[in-house]
Parts: sequence; structure tokens; C-alpha cells
Amino acid sequence: MTAESFTVWFTGMTGSGKSTLVAMLHDHIVGLGYQCESLDSGRIRQSLNRSLGFTREEIEANLMRIAYECKLLNRNGIIAIVGAISPYRDARDRIREDLGRFIEVHCRCPLEVLVKRDRSNLLECAQRGEVEHVAGINAPYEEPMKPEVLLNTDTESPDACVNKILTTLRILEYLPEASTSAYTAAEEEIIKERLRDLGYI
Amino acid sequence: MTAESFTVWFTGMTGSGKSTLVAMLHDHIVGLGYQCESLDSGRIRQSLNRSLGFTREEIEANLMRIAYECKLLNRNGIIAIVGAISPYRDARDRIREDLGRFIEVHCRCPLEVLVKRDRSNLLECAQRGEVEHVAGINAPYEEPMKPEVLLNTDTESPDACVNKILTTLRILEYLPEASTSAYTAAEEEIIKERLRDLGYI
Repeated sequence: MTAESFTVWFTGMTGSGKSTLVAMLHDHIVGLGYQCESLDSGRIRQSLNRSLGFTREEIEANLMRIAYECKLLNRNGIIAIVGAISPYRDARDRIREDLGRFIEVHCRCPLEVLVKRDRSNLLECAQRGEVEHVAGINAPYEEPMKPEVLLNTDTESPDACVNKILTTLRILEYLPEASTSAYTAAEEEIIKERLRDLGYI
Repeated sequence: MTAESFTVWFTGMTGSGKSTLVAMLHDHIVGLGYQCESLDSGRIRQSLNRSLGFTREEIEANLMRIAYECKLLNRNGIIAIVGAISPYRDARDRIREDLGRFIEVHCRCPLEVLVKRDRSNLLECAQRGEVEHVAGINAPYEEPMKPEVLLNTDTESPDACVNKILTTLRILEYLPEASTSAYTAAEEEIIKERLRDLGYI
């Protein structure tokens, strides 16, 4: 199935649930019969963009390359799903403008929960100053002001998060046939209300 | 129309006709009803990969990123056409191995013809040592040993070149319905003969 395509862009601190949700959303969208590609900022950095460091310019260069890939995919009818910390609001907004059909999903999770969940201890090490460039700890993480979808990944289950995204995609008419398993009319009304407040519908 | 996809990779020195032929082939393939993307190494370098210089590693990094884009496109049924000097044989061979369905087109043209055609005088400047990193002059250009298509762009017209590529794509069964306007059975037999000699059919 091909459709006018779009990009779903997950932003959030390390450990906030981006990769899990990217994979779940991907599977759901493929299950609906669409062509879909997932792009993981960290993996792309480790393979193709190894030479890039962590200055603001280098972080943005990595994101701009991913955005270019989304553009190539979208204009060929393929849905792109990106998981990227993408800490700079301005960079995300430029990507939004460039891509046009762009859904920003903010995975929000309180720092203490992130620290507790973090098996690699990256966050604690950053807090102690032993690791640099960790967004939200010792490097900037600028939360989105108007994300189409705001997920509280500490309290909402992964299934609930995916349903929220799918419901949003349906309301915005990006994915008219997106089915969600567990959403009530009341819950859907809350999402609509929010999109109305933000000026998206 | 979607098909099992592939990448056509044009290699050759600056001024050898890559961009012209990429554009012509692109139009022809779109005309057949396929989805197709063209990627120009020089343009990608100027926009996304500005920070890359011209060491062997940097040239290869640029090519590997383009190859990654081809991979994304191909696995979604979209034909990719690349125009890239891509001077290193080894890098091209690694890309060939990675992509699998890969047609290498060598745009070959004698240096004196390239110099005569070169309106920017880049080649002459390089010959005088005023410009660095010009493949084939003061930087390596390693010709392909077994390109699927060898074009002599000094003597073959652009239309003849495109026909040669399309005929090759048909014989190799990448593009079964590729029609060519002017090829005779005898000319086609020459192409088949060559592909047989190279072990491609």
C-alpha cells in the first residue's frame, strides 16, 4: 500500500523508550500493509557517521542526514520512523519545516526514573562527570514545545503509547485506517482536544 | 510499479557524462512506471556532507552514506541511480557486495577530450597543480575491471549510452520491460557476449 507519506520523529533523553516504541510502531504500521523504514540515530552514528563528534554542529549534521533519508523515503511513499535524542529544538523545527508531514513524539520521563532504569549507568556516570555529552545531564536537551504526541513513558505502558500515536495519526488523517486496540471515545477526545489547542486540527 | 529493485552506479572522471546520463536514465525508468531516485555524489557532498574533505577515508565515507541510502531505497522497491566519481575500486566493490543488485556503469572518456570539454578549466588547473584532489589527474581514479556497462562517452551519443544501459538491464533481467529505441539484434548480441565473458550471464 502506498500513501502520501510522513515521518514520525521520536525525541527524548536516553532511556526514555524511543527504540522500543519505534519498533512497536513500525511493526504495527507494516501490519497495516504500509511500507515503513525505521532509522535509529545511534546506530547510524556508529556505522555511517562514526567520524562525527558531539559538538552542536556535529549533532545537527547527523540529524540532517537522517532527515534527508526521511525525505527520500517519504517522497517515494514510504513512512519513516526515527528514534533520535535530537536535543536541539531548533534543529527539530527545521526538519519539521523541511519534511512538511512530520509528527513529533516526545518521550518524556522524569530523570529519577531514567536513572533507576539505566542498566548501563550512563546517566549516573554523567551526573558524576565521568562521561560527557549526555543530553539532559551535562549537555542540552530542549523539550519540544508543541509535539503532536506527548508520552509519559514512566506511567503509560508501551501499548498505550503506541495507541496514542496511532490515534493521533488517524485524527490528523495521516493514517486513516490506523486501528487502536484499547482507546475509548473519551480518551480519543482528550487527544483531539490537545491537537486543537496546539492548532494541529 | 514495484519490482525487486537495484542500483545503477555511474563511475567516471569529472566531465565524463555521469550527470547527464543519470538524468536521462532516470526519466526513462520513471517513464516505464517505476519508482526511481537519483543521487548525485557532488550535490550530497555540498549539502549534507560538507564537513568531509578529500582523504581516501573521507571520500569513502561519502560513498558509504550514498550506498546506505541506496540500500534503504532498494529494499523498499525503489530503483536508485547514483552518479559519483567514486575513484576507488575497492570501495565500489564493497558497495557492490553490500547492495547485491548492483550495476556498475563506467563512463570512460580520454583525458584530452575531457580537458577540451571542461568549461570550468578544473582539469587544466589540476594539471598545472593549482587545484588538488582531482581524480585521474592529481588523485587516484581506478577504472572498474568488470563494469556491467562500459560507455565510451567521447564516441557514443547520450541516447546510445542510455540504450546500452537499458539493454543490459533487460538482458540481466533487472528491468524485463526496458525498451530501447535503436538497438539492433547484432548490437544486443555484442552486449550479451560481453556480459557472458565477464561472467554476469
